[in-house]
Amino acid sequence: MSAPDTVAFTYRRRVEFADTDAAGMVHFSVFFRYMEESEHAVWRSAGMDIFASHETNSWPRISAHFDFKAPLRFQDEFEVRTEIAAVTRSTIQWSHVLTRGETRIGAGTVTVVYVSKERDGSIKSAEIPEGITSKLRAALVS
Amino acid sequence: MSAPDTVAFTYRRRVEFADTDAAGMVHFSVFFRYMEESEHAVWRSAGMDIFASHETNSWPRISAHFDFKAPLRFQDEFEVRTEIAAVTRSTIQWSHVLTRGETRIGAGTVTVVYVSKERDGSIKSAEIPEGITSKLRAALVS
Amino acid sequence: MSAPDTVAFTYRRRVEFADTDAAGMVHFSVFFRYMEESEHAVWRSAGMDIFASHETNSWPRISAHFDFKAPLRFQDEFEVRTEIAAVTRSTIQWSHVLTRGETRIGAGTVTVVYVSKERDGSIKSAEIPEGITSKLRAALVS
Amino acid sequence: MSAPDTVAFTYRRRVEFADTDAAGMVHFSVFFRYMEESEHAVWRSAGMDIFASHETNSWPRISAHFDFKAPLRFQDEFEVRTEIAAVTRSTIQWSHVLTRGETRIGAGTVTVVYVSKERDGSIKSAEIPEGITSKLRAALVS
Repeated sequence: MSAPDTVAFTYRRRVEFADTDAAGMVHFSVFFRYMEESEHAVWRSAGMDIFASHETNSWPRISAHFDFKAPLRFQDEFEVRTEIAAVTRSTIQWSHVLTRGETRIGAGTVTVVYVSKERDGSIKSAEIPEGITSKLRAALVS
Repeated sequence: MSAPDTVAFTYRRRVEFADTDAAGMVHFSVFFRYMEESEHAVWRSAGMDIFASHETNSWPRISAHFDFKAPLRFQDEFEVRTEIAAVTRSTIQWSHVLTRGETRIGAGTVTVVYVSKERDGSIKSAEIPEGITSKLRAALVS
Repeated sequence: MSAPDTVAFTYRRRVEFADTDAAGMVHFSVFFRYMEESEHAVWRSAGMDIFASHETNSWPRISAHFDFKAPLRFQDEFEVRTEIAAVTRSTIQWSHVLTRGETRIGAGTVTVVYVSKERDGSIKSAEIPEGITSKLRAALVS
Repeated sequence: MSAPDTVAFTYRRRVEFADTDAAGMVHFSVFFRYMEESEHAVWRSAGMDIFASHETNSWPRISAHFDFKAPLRFQDEFEVRTEIAAVTRSTIQWSHVLTRGETRIGAGTVTVVYVSKERDGSIKSAEIPEGITSKLRAALVS
């Protein structure tokens, strides 16, 4: 058996009424919530909690983008396919593709940085603890 | 002319697009945000910050209701008239009336409780510190 | 076997990060979204779509309230138990109880009215079409 | 004094409590709402309403990105400086820079496309009506 071209996690969601706007479709800002929901689902699937050590560390977003291809409407069921696009010492770039059945809804990326909270309230990027990235990658294939 | 029966604070707001839903009007849950925004504006007008001592104390909401009379739509300008309806040892009941020009949009109440955060993470209702309620009342007339 | 005292629908949900606020718990306005999500799930369970005839009719909310007993936090799994509390010619009052395991989170009601859209853009309450209420009630027991 | 290199519109806003998340800062998805609010304020400043002809035309977003430099917290007052970065036959790319006093909070772009609604419910990109772009540009200097 050959290796998969990509490993991805699939998150399934339905559009709720509060997600929509007066144009009759999901408000464009809500797609960023959908991407985050899928990312957090990967963490849970990996047996981890992204918020577990939030007193001392956190994962703020440093960059996010989304390209919109087709609208989502109230009660649409859709999928988010989530991959890890890139990893550095202290960042993970998540990549997400949204589809409703055969229709491509759009795609985006969210880059997060691992930070430690300093005593003075400031934050500082830190090395991602060993094991986290490998566990997240493993969750993508499960 | 006699003195007014009530003193109220007026908060002015415009409906933003993200506040609307696919029915073309402001989503019903957003009215609760509008009421909270006005309450927080009263605190600021009183020269206080409701969140200032949030490490040790906070003001969670224990009850909220709203009666909807007419819809608000994108870009509507409206007013929230906010009063203190009742005060107990540890709670304040805020009362809010929303209007757009001469049209009554709706009215609601939000009851908040002053709590202290215990060492074990639980919260416990506490006596509202002296001076807070009088300062809030003073801000309603300004 | 005796008849149940109440018939209720159970909707299951997890708290997403965007639902939380700087007090570390679900923002109080979000509970109104949770109640609506459960109501819409009842419609789907009854094989109906509340938004199907939105060009001519809709179900605006006329009253909503919630009493908060305990906080929900990020990633908490909780249940909404939804019942029909009252029905009139043109309104349905939904009743919802939220629990996280054995902990009661809170309870609320949302009253909705069936309206027809007039040619001039105004809305007018209308008699709920035959069969809708009985189908919704049937979905509560399934 | 020389002419400014760029023309920009300034939108002022305060962080509301519902904008924050359990990390104690504005949720990353909310920055996309802030950018849209400023864009809509430019339309109003130009004496136009982006939603005026929504029965036949609209301005869906086709791409959005934001780079986050520093957090915003509850009650922070901040500015959005909005420019037009690029215009094509049917698209406008808006550019936004957020600052809180001297602190750069972040910057992003949102690209919108002018579409007409076809009889079958689909949408099709259309030429931006004459005068709209020039009026928007004029509003940036006012």
